[in-house]
Amino acid sequence: MNVKGRHFRTIWLKESDPKTLRIINQQVLPHRFEILDLSTVEDVRRAIKDMYLRGAGLIGAAAAYGMYLAACEAGEGTFDRDLLAAAEILKNTRPTAGNLAWAVDAMLAALTGKEGTKAQKEEAARREAAAIADADAEFCRNIGLYGCGIIEALREKKKGEAVNILTHCNAGWLAFVDYGTALSPIYAAFDKGIPVHVWVDETRPRNQGASLTAWELGCHGVPHDLIPDNAGGHLMQRGLVDLVITGADRVTRRGDAANKIGTYLKAAAAKENGLPFYVALPSSTFDFTMLDGVKEIPIEERDPEEVRHICGKTRSGAIETVLICPETTTARNWGFDVTPARYITGLITDRGVTEASEEGILKLYPEASL
Amino acid sequence: MNVKGRHFRTIWLKESDPKTLRIINQQVLPHRFEILDLSTVEDVRRAIKDMYLRGAGLIGAAAAYGMYLAACEAGEGTFDRDLLAAAEILKNTRPTAGNLAWAVDAMLAALTGKEGTKAQKEEAARREAAAIADADAEFCRNIGLYGCGIIEALREKKKGEAVNILTHCNAGWLAFVDYGTALSPIYAAFDKGIPVHVWVDETRPRNQGASLTAWELGCHGVPHDLIPDNAGGHLMQRGLVDLVITGADRVTRRGDAANKIGTYLKAAAAKENGLPFYVALPSSTFDFTMLDGVKEIPIEERDPEEVRHICGKTRSGAIETVLICPETTTARNWGFDVTPARYITGLITDRGVTEASEEGILKLYPEASL
Repeated sequence: MNVKGRHFRTIWLKESDPKTLRIINQQVLPHRFEILDLSTVEDVRRAIKDMYLRGAGLIGAAAAYGMYLAACEAGEGTFDRDLLAAAEILKNTRPTAGNLAWAVDAMLAALTGKEGTKAQKEEAARREAAAIADADAEFCRNIGLYGCGIIEALREKKKGEAVNILTHCNAGWLAFVDYGTALSPIYAAFDKGIPVHVWVDETRPRNQGASLTAWELGCHGVPHDLIPDNAGGHLMQRGLVDLVITGADRVTRRGDAANKIGTYLKAAAAKENGLPFYVALPSSTFDFTMLDGVKEIPIEERDPEEVRHICGKTRSGAIETVLICPETTTARNWGFDVTPARYITGLITDRGVTEASEEGILKLYPEASL
Repeated sequence: MNVKGRHFRTIWLKESDPKTLRIINQQVLPHRFEILDLSTVEDVRRAIKDMYLRGAGLIGAAAAYGMYLAACEAGEGTFDRDLLAAAEILKNTRPTAGNLAWAVDAMLAALTGKEGTKAQKEEAARREAAAIADADAEFCRNIGLYGCGIIEALREKKKGEAVNILTHCNAGWLAFVDYGTALSPIYAAFDKGIPVHVWVDETRPRNQGASLTAWELGCHGVPHDLIPDNAGGHLMQRGLVDLVITGADRVTRRGDAANKIGTYLKAAAAKENGLPFYVALPSSTFDFTMLDGVKEIPIEERDPEEVRHICGKTRSGAIETVLICPETTTARNWGFDVTPARYITGLITDRGVTEASEEGILKLYPEASL
């Protein structure tokens, strides 16, 4: 995607030194655009752990490239053992991130117990990591192509006016290697010349909408406005929203979707107002072992300090964290909520669009049939 | 209400100098508890205009006491003319605040065109302002008594556990002279020994929940937790909310309620989850001239800078405003939304609880019959 006219992915190898990984430092966005060099497994561990990068697809690609750096660091005679040790280190950074463990295991399977020189193994690791990153980008590109059809269909009703799309949190290219999930159809529509306008939910408490989605859309030139999370219902009631698209952290085989806290409130309001509500996700986000999302998906409760404080840029340009409540106030901080399938108009996947039901999902994923 | 064990109203006359008005400076809450002295009409004008005080009932009482100070400042021979001039000044501070104009006009009616010495007129003005403030507190106390019955009825289902009440924004004693509207039933229940726990919506963009409601409840000792505005739907879905009570800025004769932006999202989620959703209001908040709130109530759009920035206390103790999005991001900022009557279980007024319908409202307010 574009940053000041230049094409970027969220992760790539340095051209002049292909044993150095480069990422965009999401810790300092949107206030500074900073590229970080990661040269060791330890650098990658810290980048994932301390959230210099985040997002399901990007964490997976970073872990894969971390295993490539591990292959470069490994001893010739201790290659497999060194790789297994690095795998443990990387997997422990974000234990609940499904794509992370999957990518590390894929790298291990491709690289351990194999013949060949050290140089051959390094090259195989580089190719494998690049394939994982490319596949992530390709999944997201396909989500964009399929989802674009939904926006195009709405365009006809708008008679030249922009299609107004509301999104929550950041499921854009910053969360993946490129394109994103919820934002991918929007980029595809914009690039095709379809007039679109995005309502960007701030997304308290961590403000991924205000800090990441607004930044991404701005870089690409997509018209948008930041709104408080409280505004969506009013906008829907007044006819100012045509479509809602969000990402997902986990979707059950019946189509219940866990996503950033607050998603469910928008889904309920969309239902009340008869508006289409879509969830965009790559195939890897399905959890075919679960049926009832409200009962089965565990919802992580995070540090209440995230609710009591907020981070931003002061007038003098410093990045500062401020307390927004009394010192003694306690807070609660659930990270996600579950939107039951009955609120979801459809799921936009890299295999196509389907209804949020077991029947619809199994049509696209016959391999998940019992 | 209580602040560190001492009883306070939001506005009162200084005991040692009854020509000085005292208020709690809401600009610096919750980080500092500061009492301001207002000695002139100009002081009162600035306090209302710059929001050292806010809230429908409190603005009305402050304007009434402002007119009392105007009576003290007025010339003997120019009394009526001076009062009319002060009335204009006070009314222009917050042109859309209904209670303000009402209180100023009530003071003018009581004080102009009357016989008597200057001292007699000053005393009449003081009594009249005190009566307006006392009436506001009494309305709110009655809302508490009626609303307490709703909480008491829920208590039986909870078998000793606390009744969980979610509220949005600040409709507490800080917004009135005492007690508040949405919070008044909660204080009444708590004071009666009914176990209650309050979910306090942060209430972006101006954070009245985090800064004022959390502070009020903390001062009075009512158990509560601060939550992001995004959390309410999840809490309702998981059975962690028994009741929602909010205030209102305007309620139509059919029972549609305008309140702080975001109220409607909570009402829609409450309906989806079969939970009671009540709106608490004094009689003066009804607008019997309007029927359809969504079509007829004008929704103020406020300065987008309120969305782009947030104010809080830094680690070093300074109160600082930080930018939370890219410098170039545009934002939109509607102050209120409308919750249609069909989402509202009942209205808690100073005359009793009634259903949110024209029929129910006219039973309590027969004088509004056409």
